[in-house]
Amino acid sequence: MTAIEEFMQEVNRDVDAALDALVPAAETEPKLLHEAIRWSLFGNGKRIRPAIVFAAGETFGADPKGLSRAAAAIEMIHTFSLIHDDLPAMDDDDLRRGRQTCHVKFGEATAILAGDALQTLAFKVLAEDEGLTLGVRVRLIADIASASGTPTGMVAGQQLDLDAEGRVVAIDELDAIHSRKTGALIAVSAKTGAIIGGASADEMAAIQQYASRIGLLFQITDDLLDVTQATETLGKTAGKDIAAKKATYPRHFGVDNTRKMANAIRDEAYSALSVIDRDTSMLSSLTDLIVNRTN
Amino acid sequence: MTAIEEFMQEVNRDVDAALDALVPAAETEPKLLHEAIRWSLFGNGKRIRPAIVFAAGETFGADPKGLSRAAAAIEMIHTFSLIHDDLPAMDDDDLRRGRQTCHVKFGEATAILAGDALQTLAFKVLAEDEGLTLGVRVRLIADIASASGTPTGMVAGQQLDLDAEGRVVAIDELDAIHSRKTGALIAVSAKTGAIIGGASADEMAAIQQYASRIGLLFQITDDLLDVTQATETLGKTAGKDIAAKKATYPRHFGVDNTRKMANAIRDEAYSALSVIDRDTSMLSSLTDLIVNRTN
Repeated sequence: MTAIEEFMQEVNRDVDAALDALVPAAETEPKLLHEAIRWSLFGNGKRIRPAIVFAAGETFGADPKGLSRAAAAIEMIHTFSLIHDDLPAMDDDDLRRGRQTCHVKFGEATAILAGDALQTLAFKVLAEDEGLTLGVRVRLIADIASASGTPTGMVAGQQLDLDAEGRVVAIDELDAIHSRKTGALIAVSAKTGAIIGGASADEMAAIQQYASRIGLLFQITDDLLDVTQATETLGKTAGKDIAAKKATYPRHFGVDNTRKMANAIRDEAYSALSVIDRDTSMLSSLTDLIVNRTN
Repeated sequence: MTAIEEFMQEVNRDVDAALDALVPAAETEPKLLHEAIRWSLFGNGKRIRPAIVFAAGETFGADPKGLSRAAAAIEMIHTFSLIHDDLPAMDDDDLRRGRQTCHVKFGEATAILAGDALQTLAFKVLAEDEGLTLGVRVRLIADIASASGTPTGMVAGQQLDLDAEGRVVAIDELDAIHSRKTGALIAVSAKTGAIIGGASADEMAAIQQYASRIGLLFQITDDLLDVTQATETLGKTAGKDIAAKKATYPRHFGVDNTRKMANAIRDEAYSALSVIDRDTSMLSSLTDLIVNRTN
């Protein structure tokens, strides 16, 4: 097993244990709600965002134990967004992470509530993270809320994406959509690790540059996978973006040019890391993992 | 104008100004999302929760200026819950605060996102409330998140309410639903004011007792209004609970007995206040306002 594979396995184990401890048991009332939350959280997710939290945190010397709650909180926010994005009124998707989406399995009302509750719980978990100073907790809550909300976060990106459906958008609009919809939460994952690890101002600037690159990289590879992979490999319905006439990079630039863009952005991520005088090998490997992913 | 009327006017002015400053402008992209958020926030709401924050805070000597962001944050959480509760998959209501519900006016997808963004923004506003110490901010975020989420908060109450539809529930189940669905956020409003005002441990215990009573009182009077008021007065569709065979106090005890219960609970709220050696007249008046409300 390569170092990055081992690292990803550890991240999965740590974040799953943290999530399991933080989310109400399936036997706790209201059971249906907690079953729905657990169904969506433990559905074979790749845990990319927690991995970025751990890799960035460990780069700056954080104890992995001190990172797991924040990593779990970010995964909760991500999962809430998936549940709501899959709803019939939004992307109307039946398949996610290789199995039924939350609303197909538990009904729309419970799916809406499960997403709502996951968002709430994420902020509670951050506020109650006693391994972090009060100042760090407040900073993480503010940053993660900005990355999740509007006008610069994930929810705004989802609305912009809806607004753009069915028409061809200019490249700067495409960037504005993607930097919010996917980039912001990916980027704040790196920032979260660096804050907990106590990165210096210069290091933080480099990490933010790195984070913005892998955020964009993640979205571009997501778009590529929608075009090039089968539903079975992807674990969610393939070709949805094309069917919905969504604004995507391959639609704008073609598949080959989009691949070249992805490689160029990977190199920019490397070069952001090169100014950090620490062992950044795991952050490099994560970048490669994103470029080369198949689902 | 009576003292409580004047107080409510001031609360409305203060909280509206705070909300207007904290929410992205309607001209900021994505415009539809921000219009939807503003439509729901500025729709003639009664601002009961902010009023409780201000009344409790001022009872313990807090400067009103130091209360307005927290009051606005709680109103954002309340408004998010109204937007989501009104969705077709939930209570499917077309009318709220005397006008079209968010999804009727802006579409379901945008309504879901508007609710999501309001929740996010509430926690951001609390985290960035520089008038409060870091410790108070973290405590408020944890408490308000608990009151909003699951298993003891508003989202859990909404799920329990859905679970109970169409069948007769025992009184303890009814209490469990209502204490979560409405009581928790009302109660945390009082607690928030008391925390910011720096109430002592004894005072905090009394305020929590008071808060639990007015939380229950609010729900009981809400149930009564659904039975006794016309849609026009109510500003939302009357008789919905009956139509949906919802678990309510009048359904369980009858209207007259429910009124008697409301008066008994009001007296319990008074008696909780009587042990606080401060001027609690505004909290008493708020209790009366809840008992006597017509919408």
